Amino acid sequence: MKTIYLYFDFISPYVYLAWFGIKPILKKYDVVLNPIPVLFAGLLNAHGQKGPAEIPSKRIYTVIDTMRGAIKLNIPYEGPPAHPFNPLSPLRMTLAMADSVQKNNFIEIVLNACWAEGRDISDANVLKDLCLKAGCDVNNAIQKMQNIEVKEELKKNTETAIARGVFGVPTFMVDNELFWGSDRIQFMENYLNGQLKVDQTKVEKILKRPRAADRK
Amino acid sequence: MKTIYLYFDFISPYVYLAWFGIKPILKKYDVVLNPIPVLFAGLLNAHGQKGPAEIPSKRIYTVIDTMRGAIKLNIPYEGPPAHPFNPLSPLRMTLAMADSVQKNNFIEIVLNACWAEGRDISDANVLKDLCLKAGCDVNNAIQKMQNIEVKEELKKNTETAIARGVFGVPTFMVDNELFWGSDRIQFMENYLNGQLKVDQTKVEKILKRPRAADRK
Repeated sequence: MKTIYLYFDFISPYVYLAWFGIKPILKKYDVVLNPIPVLFAGLLNAHGQKGPAEIPSKRIYTVIDTMRGAIKLNIPYEGPPAHPFNPLSPLRMTLAMADSVQKNNFIEIVLNACWAEGRDISDANVLKDLCLKAGCDVNNAIQKMQNIEVKEELKKNTETAIARGVFGVPTFMVDNELFWGSDRIQFMENYLNGQLKVDQTKVEKILKRPRAADRK
Repeated sequence: MKTIYLYFDFISPYVYLAWFGIKPILKKYDVVLNPIPVLFAGLLNAHGQKGPAEIPSKRIYTVIDTMRGAIKLNIPYEGPPAHPFNPLSPLRMTLAMADSVQKNNFIEIVLNACWAEGRDISDANVLKDLCLKAGCDVNNAIQKMQNIEVKEELKKNTETAIARGVFGVPTFMVDNELFWGSDRIQFMENYLNGQLKVDQTKVEKILKRPRAADRK
Protein backbone atom coordinates (compact mmCIF):
# COMPACT_ATOMS: atom_id res chain seq x y z
CA MET A 1 0.00 0.00 0.00
CA LYS A 2 1.37 3.39 -1.04
CA THR A 3 1.09 6.51 1.05
CA ILE A 4 -0.07 9.72 -0.59
CA TYR A 5 1.26 12.60 1.46
CA LEU A 6 -0.71 15.81 1.23
CA TYR A 7 1.03 19.00 2.31
CA PHE A 8 -1.74 21.44 3.11
CA ASP A 9 -2.81 24.65 4.83
CA PHE A 10 -6.46 25.51 5.45
CA ILE A 11 -5.82 28.99 4.03
CA SER A 12 -5.86 27.74 0.43
CA PRO A 13 -9.17 27.13 -1.37
CA TYR A 14 -7.26 24.75 -3.64
CA VAL A 15 -6.71 22.54 -0.58
CA TYR A 16 -10.48 22.37 -0.17
CA LEU A 17 -10.80 21.31 -3.83
CA ALA A 18 -7.93 18.83 -3.50
CA TRP A 19 -9.46 17.22 -0.41
CA PHE A 20 -12.64 16.31 -2.26
CA GLY A 21 -10.93 15.82 -5.61
CA ILE A 22 -8.69 13.06 -4.23
CA LYS A 23 -11.56 10.96 -2.83
CA PRO A 24 -12.17 8.86 -5.98
CA ILE A 25 -8.44 7.99 -6.04
CA LEU A 26 -8.56 6.85 -2.42
CA LYS A 27 -11.46 4.54 -3.21
CA LYS A 28 -10.01 3.19 -6.42
CA TYR A 29 -6.38 2.46 -5.46
CA ASP A 30 -4.60 0.65 -2.68
CA VAL A 31 -3.35 3.90 -1.16
CA VAL A 32 -3.64 5.75 2.12
CA LEU A 33 -3.76 9.53 2.52
CA ASN A 34 -1.45 11.15 5.03
CA PRO A 35 -2.25 14.86 5.29
CA ILE A 36 0.59 16.97 6.67
CA PRO A 37 -0.21 20.48 7.96
CA VAL A 38 2.30 23.13 6.89
CA LEU A 39 2.26 26.91 7.10
CA PHE A 40 1.78 28.27 3.56
CA ALA A 41 3.21 31.63 4.69
CA GLY A 42 6.35 29.74 5.70
CA LEU A 43 6.68 28.32 2.18
CA LEU A 44 6.22 31.78 0.67
CA ASN A 45 8.77 33.31 3.04
CA ALA A 46 11.31 30.59 2.25
CA HIS A 47 10.98 31.13 -1.50
CA GLY A 48 10.60 34.91 -1.48
CA GLN A 49 7.33 34.42 -3.29
CA LYS A 50 3.94 36.11 -3.17
CA GLY A 51 0.75 34.15 -2.51
CA PRO A 52 -2.31 34.43 -4.78
CA ALA A 53 -4.03 36.66 -2.19
CA GLU A 54 -1.09 39.06 -2.32
CA ILE A 55 -1.38 39.91 -6.02
CA PRO A 56 -4.63 41.82 -6.68
CA SER A 57 -5.44 40.39 -10.12
CA LYS A 58 -4.44 36.87 -9.07
CA ARG A 59 -6.66 37.19 -6.00
CA ILE A 60 -9.67 37.94 -8.20
CA TYR A 61 -8.79 35.11 -10.58
CA THR A 62 -8.29 32.65 -7.73
CA VAL A 63 -11.78 33.29 -6.36
CA ILE A 64 -13.34 32.70 -9.79
CA ASP A 65 -11.12 29.71 -10.60
CA THR A 66 -11.81 27.94 -7.31
CA MET A 67 -15.54 28.63 -7.64
CA ARG A 68 -15.36 26.96 -11.06
CA GLY A 69 -13.47 24.07 -9.44
CA ALA A 70 -16.16 23.70 -6.80
CA ILE A 71 -18.86 23.58 -9.51
CA LYS A 72 -16.89 20.80 -11.26
CA LEU A 73 -16.68 18.82 -7.99
CA ASN A 74 -20.30 19.62 -7.12
CA ILE A 75 -19.37 20.97 -3.69
CA PRO A 76 -20.60 24.21 -2.08
CA TYR A 77 -18.43 27.34 -2.02
CA GLU A 78 -18.90 30.18 0.40
CA GLY A 79 -15.39 31.13 1.54
CA PRO A 80 -14.28 32.51 4.91
CA PRO A 81 -15.51 35.82 6.40
CA ALA A 82 -11.99 37.26 6.06
CA HIS A 83 -9.05 36.18 3.91
CA PRO A 84 -6.14 35.81 4.32
CA PHE A 85 -6.62 34.77 7.95
CA ASN A 86 -4.22 33.36 10.53
CA PRO A 87 -4.37 29.56 10.12
CA LEU A 88 -2.05 28.66 13.01
CA SER A 89 -4.75 27.55 15.46
CA PRO A 90 -6.54 25.06 13.18
CA LEU A 91 -3.19 23.77 11.86
CA ARG A 92 -1.92 23.20 15.38
CA MET A 93 -5.20 21.64 16.46
CA THR A 94 -4.86 19.18 13.56
CA LEU A 95 -1.58 18.06 15.12
CA ALA A 96 -3.36 17.58 18.47
CA MET A 97 -5.72 14.92 17.11
CA ALA A 98 -5.58 11.50 18.76
CA ASP A 99 -5.17 9.35 15.64
CA SER A 100 -5.25 9.45 11.85
CA VAL A 101 -8.99 8.74 11.59
CA GLN A 102 -9.81 11.61 13.93
CA LYS A 103 -7.26 13.80 12.15
CA ASN A 104 -8.74 13.20 8.69
CA ASN A 105 -12.22 13.70 10.09
CA PHE A 106 -11.20 16.99 11.71
CA ILE A 107 -9.49 18.29 8.53
CA GLU A 108 -12.61 17.68 6.47
CA ILE A 109 -14.80 19.35 9.07
CA VAL A 110 -12.50 22.39 9.19
CA LEU A 111 -12.24 22.67 5.39
CA ASN A 112 -16.02 22.49 5.07
CA ALA A 113 -16.53 25.01 7.88
CA CYS A 114 -14.19 27.47 6.20
CA TRP A 115 -14.82 27.05 2.48
CA ALA A 116 -18.32 25.55 2.27
CA GLU A 117 -20.02 27.21 5.26
CA GLY A 118 -18.15 30.49 5.58
CA ARG A 119 -17.16 30.14 9.22
CA ASP A 120 -14.14 31.80 10.83
CA ILE A 121 -11.84 28.87 11.61
CA SER A 122 -9.29 31.15 13.28
CA ASP A 123 -11.86 31.84 16.03
CA ALA A 124 -11.30 29.83 19.23
CA ASN A 125 -15.00 29.14 19.82
CA VAL A 126 -15.56 27.96 16.27
CA LEU A 127 -12.55 25.66 16.61
CA LYS A 128 -13.91 24.18 19.83
CA ASP A 129 -17.16 23.44 18.08
CA LEU A 130 -15.39 21.80 15.12
CA CYS A 131 -13.24 19.78 17.50
CA LEU A 132 -16.37 18.47 19.22
CA LYS A 133 -17.90 17.60 15.85
CA ALA A 134 -14.79 15.55 15.05
CA GLY A 135 -15.42 13.59 18.24
CA CYS A 136 -12.28 14.67 20.02
CA ASP A 137 -11.63 15.72 23.60
CA VAL A 138 -11.76 19.52 23.34
CA ASN A 139 -9.88 20.39 26.52
CA ASN A 140 -7.15 17.91 25.75
CA ALA A 141 -6.79 19.19 22.17
CA ILE A 142 -6.64 22.83 23.28
CA GLN A 143 -4.01 22.01 25.86
CA LYS A 144 -1.97 19.99 23.36
CA MET A 145 -2.06 22.60 20.60
CA GLN A 146 -0.52 25.13 22.96
CA ASN A 147 2.41 22.86 23.75
CA ILE A 148 5.77 23.83 22.38
CA GLU A 149 6.05 20.35 20.80
CA VAL A 150 3.05 20.94 18.55
CA LYS A 151 4.27 24.41 17.58
CA GLU A 152 7.67 22.92 16.73
CA GLU A 153 6.06 20.08 14.79
CA LEU A 154 4.28 22.52 12.49
CA LYS A 155 7.55 24.38 11.89
CA LYS A 156 9.38 21.14 11.27
CA ASN A 157 6.68 19.92 8.84
CA THR A 158 7.07 23.14 6.90
CA GLU A 159 10.86 22.88 6.84
CA THR A 160 10.73 19.23 5.75
CA ALA A 161 8.30 20.12 2.97
CA ILE A 162 10.62 22.90 1.76
CA ALA A 163 13.59 20.50 1.86
CA ARG A 164 11.60 18.08 -0.31
CA GLY A 165 10.95 20.76 -2.93
CA VAL A 166 7.46 21.83 -1.90
CA PHE A 167 6.72 25.48 -2.71
CA GLY A 168 2.94 25.60 -2.61
CA VAL A 169 -0.21 23.95 -1.27
CA PRO A 170 -1.80 21.58 -1.87
CA THR A 171 1.13 19.37 -2.85
CA PHE A 172 0.72 15.62 -3.09
CA MET A 173 3.76 13.38 -2.76
CA VAL A 174 3.84 9.70 -3.81
CA ASP A 175 7.19 7.94 -3.56
CA ASN A 176 9.33 11.03 -4.07
CA GLU A 177 7.20 12.45 -6.87
CA LEU A 178 5.50 15.78 -6.27
CA PHE A 179 2.14 16.80 -7.71
CA TRP A 180 1.34 20.44 -6.99
CA GLY A 181 -2.23 21.66 -7.10
CA SER A 182 -5.74 20.26 -6.97
CA ASP A 183 -5.46 20.18 -10.77
CA ARG A 184 -2.67 17.56 -10.72
CA ILE A 185 -4.72 14.69 -9.29
CA GLN A 186 -5.12 13.30 -12.82
CA PHE A 187 -1.33 13.28 -13.29
CA MET A 188 -0.97 11.51 -9.93
CA GLU A 189 -3.51 8.89 -10.96
CA ASN A 190 -1.56 8.35 -14.20
CA TYR A 191 1.59 7.96 -12.12
CA LEU A 192 -0.11 5.39 -9.87
CA ASN A 193 -0.94 3.49 -13.05
CA GLY A 194 2.69 3.45 -14.09
CA GLN A 195 2.22 6.15 -16.71
CA LEU A 196 3.75 9.62 -17.09
CA LYS A 197 7.21 8.47 -16.09
CA VAL A 198 9.56 11.27 -16.98
CA ASP A 199 13.11 10.58 -18.07
CA GLN A 200 15.16 11.59 -15.00
CA THR A 201 18.37 11.74 -17.03
CA LYS A 202 16.75 14.29 -19.30
CA VAL A 203 15.46 16.27 -16.31
CA GLU A 204 19.01 16.45 -14.92
CA LYS A 205 20.39 17.41 -18.32
CA ILE A 206 17.86 20.23 -18.72
CA LEU A 207 18.47 21.53 -15.19
CA LYS A 208 22.21 21.71 -15.82
CA ARG A 209 21.81 24.00 -18.82
CA PRO A 210 22.85 27.63 -18.36
CA ARG A 211 20.64 30.65 -17.82
CA ALA A 212 20.89 33.12 -20.68
CA ALA A 213 18.85 36.02 -19.32
CA ASP A 214 17.65 37.04 -15.89
CA ARG A 215 15.49 39.93 -14.77
CA LYS A 216 17.25 42.70 -12.91
CA MET B 1 -17.92 32.99 -33.99
CA LYS B 2 -16.11 33.63 -30.72
CA THR B 3 -12.49 34.72 -30.47
CA ILE B 4 -10.21 32.95 -28.02
CA TYR B 5 -7.39 35.32 -27.16
CA LEU B 6 -4.18 33.68 -26.05
CA TYR B 7 -1.70 35.83 -24.17
CA PHE B 8 1.63 34.11 -24.57
CA ASP B 9 5.42 34.34 -24.38
CA PHE B 10 7.70 31.74 -25.95
CA ILE B 11 9.67 31.58 -22.70
CA SER B 12 7.03 29.43 -20.99
CA PRO B 13 6.90 25.68 -21.61
CA TYR B 14 3.24 25.84 -20.57
CA VAL B 15 2.62 27.98 -23.68
CA TYR B 16 4.01 25.12 -25.76
CA LEU B 17 1.60 22.71 -24.03
CA ALA B 18 -1.30 25.17 -24.38
CA TRP B 19 -0.66 25.63 -28.10
CA PHE B 20 -1.13 21.94 -28.81
CA GLY B 21 -3.66 21.39 -26.02
CA ILE B 22 -6.09 23.91 -27.54
CA LYS B 23 -6.14 22.31 -31.01
CA PRO B 24 -9.07 19.93 -30.36
CA ILE B 25 -11.13 22.90 -29.12
CA LEU B 26 -10.37 24.86 -32.29
CA LYS B 27 -11.60 21.96 -34.41
CA LYS B 28 -14.68 21.26 -32.32
CA TYR B 29 -16.12 24.73 -31.74
CA ASP B 30 -16.97 27.72 -33.85
CA VAL B 31 -14.07 29.74 -32.46
CA VAL B 32 -10.96 31.44 -33.77
CA LEU B 33 -7.65 31.71 -31.93
CA ASN B 34 -6.00 35.10 -31.67
CA PRO B 35 -2.57 34.72 -30.05
CA ILE B 36 -1.22 37.90 -28.49
CA PRO B 37 2.51 38.12 -27.72
CA VAL B 38 3.29 39.65 -24.33
CA LEU B 39 6.49 39.87 -22.31
CA PHE B 40 6.17 37.50 -19.33
CA ALA B 41 8.91 39.43 -17.52
CA GLY B 42 6.72 42.53 -17.86
CA LEU B 43 3.85 40.72 -16.14
CA LEU B 44 6.15 39.60 -13.33
CA ASN B 45 7.58 43.10 -12.91
CA ALA B 46 4.10 44.63 -12.78
CA HIS B 47 2.95 42.22 -10.07
CA GLY B 48 6.20 42.06 -8.09
CA GLN B 49 6.14 38.31 -8.60
CA LYS B 50 8.78 35.68 -9.26
CA GLY B 51 8.57 33.38 -12.26
CA PRO B 52 8.88 29.58 -11.98
CA ALA B 53 12.48 29.74 -13.24
CA GLU B 54 13.36 32.16 -10.43
CA ILE B 55 12.48 29.82 -7.56
CA PRO B 56 14.90 26.85 -7.49
CA SER B 57 12.43 24.16 -6.32
CA LYS B 58 9.69 25.47 -8.61
CA ARG B 59 12.12 25.44 -11.53
CA ILE B 60 12.79 21.73 -10.96
CA TYR B 61 9.10 20.98 -10.56
CA THR B 62 8.21 22.93 -13.71
CA VAL B 63 10.59 20.90 -15.85
CA ILE B 64 9.09 17.63 -14.57
CA ASP B 65 5.50 18.87 -14.72
CA THR B 66 5.80 20.14 -18.30
CA MET B 67 7.54 16.92 -19.36
CA ARG B 68 4.55 15.04 -17.93
CA GLY B 69 2.25 17.42 -19.82
CA ALA B 70 4.10 16.71 -23.06
CA ILE B 71 3.73 12.95 -22.51
CA LYS B 72 -0.04 13.45 -22.03
CA LEU B 73 -0.25 15.41 -25.29
CA ASN B 74 2.09 13.00 -27.07
CA ILE B 75 4.42 15.77 -28.21
CA PRO B 76 8.23 15.81 -27.99
CA TYR B 77 10.05 17.74 -25.25
CA GLU B 78 13.63 18.85 -25.47
CA GLY B 79 13.69 22.41 -24.12
CA PRO B 80 15.95 25.30 -25.11
CA PRO B 81 19.77 25.25 -24.77
CA ALA B 82 19.55 27.99 -22.12
CA HIS B 83 16.65 29.13 -19.94
CA PRO B 84 15.50 31.73 -19.11
CA PHE B 85 16.45 33.39 -22.41
CA ASN B 86 15.62 36.77 -23.87
CA PRO B 87 12.38 36.26 -25.85
CA LEU B 88 12.14 39.81 -27.27
CA SER B 89 13.30 38.96 -30.82
CA PRO B 90 10.87 36.10 -31.50
CA LEU B 91 8.02 38.03 -29.83
CA ARG B 92 8.71 41.09 -32.00
CA MET B 93 9.09 38.97 -35.10
CA THR B 94 5.64 37.50 -34.39
CA LEU B 95 4.28 41.03 -34.61
CA ALA B 96 6.04 41.48 -37.95
CA MET B 97 4.09 38.69 -39.65
CA ALA B 98 1.98 39.63 -42.67
CA ASP B 99 -1.34 38.10 -41.62
CA SER B 100 -2.94 35.84 -39.01
CA VAL B 101 -2.32 32.61 -40.95
CA GLN B 102 1.39 33.41 -41.25
CA LYS B 103 1.47 34.53 -37.61
CA ASN B 104 -0.07 31.30 -36.29
CA ASN B 105 2.20 29.28 -38.54
CA PHE B 106 5.27 31.16 -37.27
CA ILE B 107 4.27 30.79 -33.60
CA GLU B 108 3.94 27.02 -33.95
CA ILE B 109 7.28 26.79 -35.76
CA VAL B 110 9.00 28.84 -33.04
CA LEU B 111 7.41 26.87 -30.18
CA ASN B 112 8.46 23.60 -31.78
CA ALA B 113 11.97 24.88 -32.47
CA CYS B 114 12.39 25.93 -28.84
CA TRP B 115 10.58 23.25 -26.85
CA ALA B 116 10.49 20.21 -29.15
CA GLU B 117 13.81 20.60 -31.01
CA GLY B 118 15.98 22.44 -28.48
CA ARG B 119 16.98 25.35 -30.71
CA ASP B 120 18.01 28.79 -29.48
CA ILE B 121 15.15 31.01 -30.65
CA SER B 122 16.87 34.13 -29.32
CA ASP B 123 19.59 33.64 -31.95
CA ALA B 124 19.21 35.87 -35.03
CA ASN B 125 20.22 33.16 -37.52
CA VAL B 126 17.84 30.62 -36.02
CA LEU B 127 15.05 33.19 -36.22
CA LYS B 128 15.78 33.89 -39.87
CA ASP B 129 15.54 30.19 -40.59
CA LEU B 130 12.23 29.89 -38.73
CA CYS B 131 10.91 32.94 -40.53
CA LEU B 132 11.72 31.32 -43.87
CA LYS B 133 10.02 28.10 -42.78
CA ALA B 134 6.89 30.11 -42.01
CA GLY B 135 6.97 31.36 -45.56
CA CYS B 136 7.53 34.99 -44.76
CA ASP B 137 9.79 37.63 -46.28
CA VAL B 138 12.80 37.51 -43.96
CA ASN B 139 14.29 40.89 -44.78
CA ASN B 140 10.95 42.60 -44.44
CA ALA B 141 10.24 40.85 -41.11
CA ILE B 142 13.67 41.77 -39.70
CA GLN B 143 13.24 45.37 -40.72
CA LYS B 144 9.73 45.52 -39.28
CA MET B 145 10.64 43.94 -35.93
CA GLN B 146 13.23 46.66 -35.38
CA ASN B 147 10.69 49.43 -35.91
CA ILE B 148 9.66 51.41 -32.88
CA GLU B 149 6.00 50.61 -33.70
CA VAL B 150 6.53 46.88 -33.18
CA LYS B 151 8.49 47.45 -29.97
CA GLU B 152 5.69 49.68 -28.72
CA GLU B 153 3.05 47.16 -29.77
CA LEU B 154 4.63 44.47 -27.58
CA LYS B 155 4.72 46.86 -24.62
CA LYS B 156 1.14 47.89 -25.25
CA ASN B 157 0.01 44.24 -25.52
CA THR B 158 1.62 43.56 -22.16
CA GLU B 159 0.03 46.61 -20.55
CA THR B 160 -3.38 45.76 -21.96
CA ALA B 161 -3.06 42.19 -20.66
CA ILE B 162 -2.18 43.51 -17.20
CA ALA B 163 -5.13 45.91 -17.29
CA ARG B 164 -7.41 42.94 -18.12
CA GLY B 165 -6.17 41.02 -15.08
CA VAL B 166 -3.58 38.78 -16.74
CA PHE B 167 -0.69 37.84 -14.42
CA GLY B 168 0.78 34.78 -16.14
CA VAL B 169 1.14 32.95 -19.44
CA PRO B 170 -0.49 31.21 -21.12
CA THR B 171 -3.78 32.96 -20.39
CA PHE B 172 -6.80 32.37 -22.57
CA MET B 173 -9.57 34.96 -22.71
CA VAL B 174 -13.06 34.28 -24.05
CA ASP B 175 -15.59 37.10 -23.73
CA ASN B 176 -14.06 38.67 -20.64
CA GLU B 177 -13.40 35.37 -18.87
CA LEU B 178 -9.80 34.45 -18.13
CA PHE B 179 -8.43 30.90 -18.09
CA TRP B 180 -4.86 30.79 -16.86
CA GLY B 181 -2.64 27.86 -17.71
CA SER B 182 -2.46 25.02 -20.19
CA ASP B 183 -4.37 23.06 -17.53
CA ARG B 184 -7.47 25.27 -17.80
CA ILE B 185 -8.44 24.32 -21.36
CA GLN B 186 -11.03 21.92 -19.93
CA PHE B 187 -12.60 24.75 -17.89
CA MET B 188 -12.66 26.89 -21.03
CA GLU B 189 -14.37 24.14 -22.99
CA ASN B 190 -16.96 23.85 -20.22
CA TYR B 191 -17.46 27.61 -20.44
CA LEU B 192 -17.93 27.44 -24.22
CA ASN B 193 -20.64 24.84 -23.52
CA GLY B 194 -22.43 27.24 -21.18
CA GLN B 195 -21.23 25.43 -18.06
CA LEU B 196 -19.10 26.59 -15.11
CA LYS B 197 -20.85 29.95 -14.89
CA VAL B 198 -19.79 31.45 -11.60
CA ASP B 199 -22.10 33.70 -9.62
CA GLN B 200 -20.62 37.17 -10.23
CA THR B 201 -22.56 38.64 -7.30
CA LYS B 202 -20.93 36.10 -5.01
CA VAL B 203 -17.49 36.83 -6.49
CA GLU B 204 -17.99 40.54 -5.74
CA LYS B 205 -19.23 39.75 -2.23
CA ILE B 206 -16.20 37.56 -1.50
CA LEU B 207 -13.75 40.14 -2.89
CA LYS B 208 -15.23 42.84 -0.64
CA ARG B 209 -14.57 40.87 2.54
CA PRO B 210 -11.76 42.11 4.80
CA ARG B 211 -8.25 40.72 5.15
CA ALA B 212 -7.62 39.39 8.65
CA ALA B 213 -3.90 38.58 8.46
CA ASP B 214 -1.10 39.64 6.15
CA ARG B 215 2.55 38.60 6.08
CA LYS B 216 5.00 41.24 7.23
